[in-house]
Amino acid sequence: MKIEHLIAQIKSKNSFLCVGLDTDLDKIPEHLLKEEDPIFEFNKAIIDATHSYCVAYKPNIAFYEAYGIAGWRSLEKTMDYLNEKHPDMYTIADAKRGDIGNTSTRYAKAFFDTMNFDAVTIAPYMGRDSVEPFLTFEDKHAILLALTSNQGAFDFQTRTTEGLELYKQVLKTSRDYENSERLMYVVGATKAIYLKEIREIIPESFLLVPGVGAQGGSLQEVCKYGITKDVGLLVNSSRGILYASQAKDFANKAAQQAKTIQNEMEMELHKRFGD
Amino acid sequence: MKIEHLIAQIKSKNSFLCVGLDTDLDKIPEHLLKEEDPIFEFNKAIIDATHSYCVAYKPNIAFYEAYGIAGWRSLEKTMDYLNEKHPDMYTIADAKRGDIGNTSTRYAKAFFDTMNFDAVTIAPYMGRDSVEPFLTFEDKHAILLALTSNQGAFDFQTRTTEGLELYKQVLKTSRDYENSERLMYVVGATKAIYLKEIREIIPESFLLVPGVGAQGGSLQEVCKYGITKDVGLLVNSSRGILYASQAKDFANKAAQQAKTIQNEMEMELHKRFGD
Repeated sequence: MKIEHLIAQIKSKNSFLCVGLDTDLDKIPEHLLKEEDPIFEFNKAIIDATHSYCVAYKPNIAFYEAYGIAGWRSLEKTMDYLNEKHPDMYTIADAKRGDIGNTSTRYAKAFFDTMNFDAVTIAPYMGRDSVEPFLTFEDKHAILLALTSNQGAFDFQTRTTEGLELYKQVLKTSRDYENSERLMYVVGATKAIYLKEIREIIPESFLLVPGVGAQGGSLQEVCKYGITKDVGLLVNSSRGILYASQAKDFANKAAQQAKTIQNEMEMELHKRFGD
Repeated sequence: MKIEHLIAQIKSKNSFLCVGLDTDLDKIPEHLLKEEDPIFEFNKAIIDATHSYCVAYKPNIAFYEAYGIAGWRSLEKTMDYLNEKHPDMYTIADAKRGDIGNTSTRYAKAFFDTMNFDAVTIAPYMGRDSVEPFLTFEDKHAILLALTSNQGAFDFQTRTTEGLELYKQVLKTSRDYENSERLMYVVGATKAIYLKEIREIIPESFLLVPGVGAQGGSLQEVCKYGITKDVGLLVNSSRGILYASQAKDFANKAAQQAKTIQNEMEMELHKRFGD
């Protein structure tokens, strides 16, 4: 998907919500478990209920991979459903891949070609030749981990190297990668205060922001420091939406949660851009 | 697999060779393409031909993932074949995964439970809570990326933070993780000279060493600086063995290549441990 198309969607829907499809058989409503493919049926119901309030869906690949081939089938069906019924939706494979050149090319093909995702999350540890293969696909994006929302982020990401924290080195160094205009970055909402300095290094790049809600990050803080003239944010919510209810009304409750977040986003957008 | 069992295998076979199953439809012999599952048939032939000369197999997950469900099926069949016919073989999922706690748990289940791998490669960028879920499985190992064999390793891994290069910080910090005795580390053979200092931080941990052969690393150098009293090395070769020939004799040629490396390993072992 062209970035202009994503921006247009955000502006027309007054939403930069990404719904994380971390679909977990232990948490989905019991009545779905008798379906042939409970994971797909759950995703389909969630998508049908929430698509007016969000602009992106982000399957967390681990949740599918854990079920082997059956899980990959559920993932492919989910992607086919999105591509057919909701082609305007931006789709992110939350896979956090990264390997040497020829291997990264394989991963890129798996997500961009085989499954037609718009973006895939990437770990930066192996450097340039592990990232660039993901950047050779037109109208696709690689979303590089910069500063993640978990406690372990402080193990390495915030260590200072040559006067700059590692996550800032990642931001800075990756700007020189070939086709770096196709990069986005993961910055956790639990660390929104860091966004001001992050925006000094990457003033315009889109950020994928996990950790609002369940993990304790604040949407207002994220917007205060992170928003750009093109919005430049995709804020993810997973559990808060998916498991708002575990009863038969789960899809309605998910829609209500998504709408609540979308309303909050609309207020933030109006503050900055007017009507 | 218990580490003692791996060590016993290494000593009885006089080999610490790991064969990387980076199986690529574009490179396997043409006559296999008419089989129902060419990737599995190729792997099976390679395993049958090389198992006397190696102690481990390492499917590179990207190569399977690139083919979607069909690829995962080939991977599962390969693992079933290894588990049934060659249960003594140590198996490594070269997946380079890493995500926040509950997601890492999913990846761990996928590889350790669903597919019964002995080990999986992990990226360290997200820190403690992304690694520890892989360390809760008894007799399984997580192989953490430390210093990789590619050029991009110099982007971040060798930067100095608090007086120590990042990859050394990874080695040092991870020693404090819970169940860290289940950690192994990836250290590229192209950077064998670094092994001396690495062994000062992790004197006994097993190292998975890619980059011998095709990528230019030297087995002698790796042994000189990296070998421990329990050998402590798994040296990987992929392309040099798999694609030694692309004709009908590919399995024989692969066996010859594996045998050549095993012979070299035997010499290195005899130098240090005698007969």
